[in-house]
Amino acid sequence: MESTAAEVSGELSRIIPGHWEVPKALRASMYYSLMAGGKRLRPLLVIAAAEAFGGSRPAAMPIACAVEIVHTYSLIHDDLPAMDDDDYRRGKPTNHKVYGEATAILAGDALLTHAFYSIVQAGRRHGVPAERLLSIVEDLAEMAGARGMVGGQAADMAGEQGITQLQELKFIHLHKTGDLIIFSLLAGGRIGGASVEQLEGLRRFGRDLGLAFQIQDDILDLVGDEAKLGKATQSDVQQQKVTYPYFVGMDASLREVERLTQSAKQALVDTAIPDPARLMEIADYLMKRDH
Amino acid sequence: MESTAAEVSGELSRIIPGHWEVPKALRASMYYSLMAGGKRLRPLLVIAAAEAFGGSRPAAMPIACAVEIVHTYSLIHDDLPAMDDDDYRRGKPTNHKVYGEATAILAGDALLTHAFYSIVQAGRRHGVPAERLLSIVEDLAEMAGARGMVGGQAADMAGEQGITQLQELKFIHLHKTGDLIIFSLLAGGRIGGASVEQLEGLRRFGRDLGLAFQIQDDILDLVGDEAKLGKATQSDVQQQKVTYPYFVGMDASLREVERLTQSAKQALVDTAIPDPARLMEIADYLMKRDH
Repeated sequence: MESTAAEVSGELSRIIPGHWEVPKALRASMYYSLMAGGKRLRPLLVIAAAEAFGGSRPAAMPIACAVEIVHTYSLIHDDLPAMDDDDYRRGKPTNHKVYGEATAILAGDALLTHAFYSIVQAGRRHGVPAERLLSIVEDLAEMAGARGMVGGQAADMAGEQGITQLQELKFIHLHKTGDLIIFSLLAGGRIGGASVEQLEGLRRFGRDLGLAFQIQDDILDLVGDEAKLGKATQSDVQQQKVTYPYFVGMDASLREVERLTQSAKQALVDTAIPDPARLMEIADYLMKRDH
Repeated sequence: MESTAAEVSGELSRIIPGHWEVPKALRASMYYSLMAGGKRLRPLLVIAAAEAFGGSRPAAMPIACAVEIVHTYSLIHDDLPAMDDDDYRRGKPTNHKVYGEATAILAGDALLTHAFYSIVQAGRRHGVPAERLLSIVEDLAEMAGARGMVGGQAADMAGEQGITQLQELKFIHLHKTGDLIIFSLLAGGRIGGASVEQLEGLRRFGRDLGLAFQIQDDILDLVGDEAKLGKATQSDVQQQKVTYPYFVGMDASLREVERLTQSAKQALVDTAIPDPARLMEIADYLMKRDH
């Protein structure tokens, strides 16, 4: 997983060509956040899903980069003063602290736009059939948009005035985090030539995995090691953010992560994904991670 | 032109389905700016370009809406306090004045994302070949992104510290305004089945028309009628914005608008666009407009 993540980072470092007529600060700002590290979880899922069907890694890689680009833009915008107002992310100053708010907003906009460009360009280069590429574009536009990731963030912002029900928190987790994870799996599956039923299996896997991932995040924010997380733990408590353990307690939260991880893996078995080992490995890794 | 613009507004009012699980404030904010009026110039260009090749209006309409959605998102983000900090647009409070900055940022993000969704969805419904749709997605992602519209806005923000050369101003005009106009024409041409040479003619038409449009905007900001423009005239002077007349004077600016308009129209003749009358009409209208 680490070597694949490094490979993804290498690709990302080349994805905004230097010869472009792009204003310097804008380009630097895009690059800064793309290269700010992170687990590269979503790219790993794209590649693992493609390879689960014998799909080609070179064809999956640009889609893997595109989803990380979208994830990166969402972090830049989420960190803005008008949103979560965060000064640090992964131990480094956030984009707007370095480049200013205007450039940070524009860098986010440019990254989101560039994700679609990368998908089409690279898909063609690798001979991915046009119909399949269109489905990937369509999935991304749906799952990253108003009823997907952006909708989840909007609900999160609205909920800061007080989430009163577990259902609301689940809606936020499912969309803000879950939808892009689901997209990653579907895109990989499409690259690999998954059937409609298998895509449905990947969707179930992604939904359960995404929720488990976010509950684990809530747990780690309460009990995690500051050095490993790269941010102050208990920050959610200080900000009075409502988390999963707040509603159901720590023990039930831990059990829910395990239950969801099992359920995710079962979805791959149920829909006869040919080679699901890597996907299952990622699911287990996420459950056991401490940062 | 007015009836087509009204038709576009009607389509736009239906483009964000009400049954979506979208947080209410986010949906309202998207809808507010989409319905805030305007000339619908870019949609008119998509439709006129498609019809210049006998392309179908129903197939062109969703692409026309998509480009207006992208234009709308760019206005929402440009108006933000960190950018141009505008309180009014077309005589109405700007998006962030009504819905707050966080929702305005997210509404912009969601609109940009939705534009890509609309293109794929509608293109399929109207049987537009997949290859053609992919080219439209690719063009939009290129011309709305870092080396297109967003790049132009970034250069504009950077230039507020003092643009010293006409070349810099032209770069901003060509990208911030021009690229989305060029996209509109190419997309219409692709829907209509334009040849590579004809697409090049549409690109030339768009480049000259976009620059003429923006110089005319600069002129109207200096001499226009406040009531018709829906914003304070001489606002550029008060904000010490550098405009085209600032560099070459008013007379030369007026002549340049006329020269560019003629040159734009000539490009359509040179590349034998079958039925260019409507496109030429739009070019003449823009040159003569007083708002």
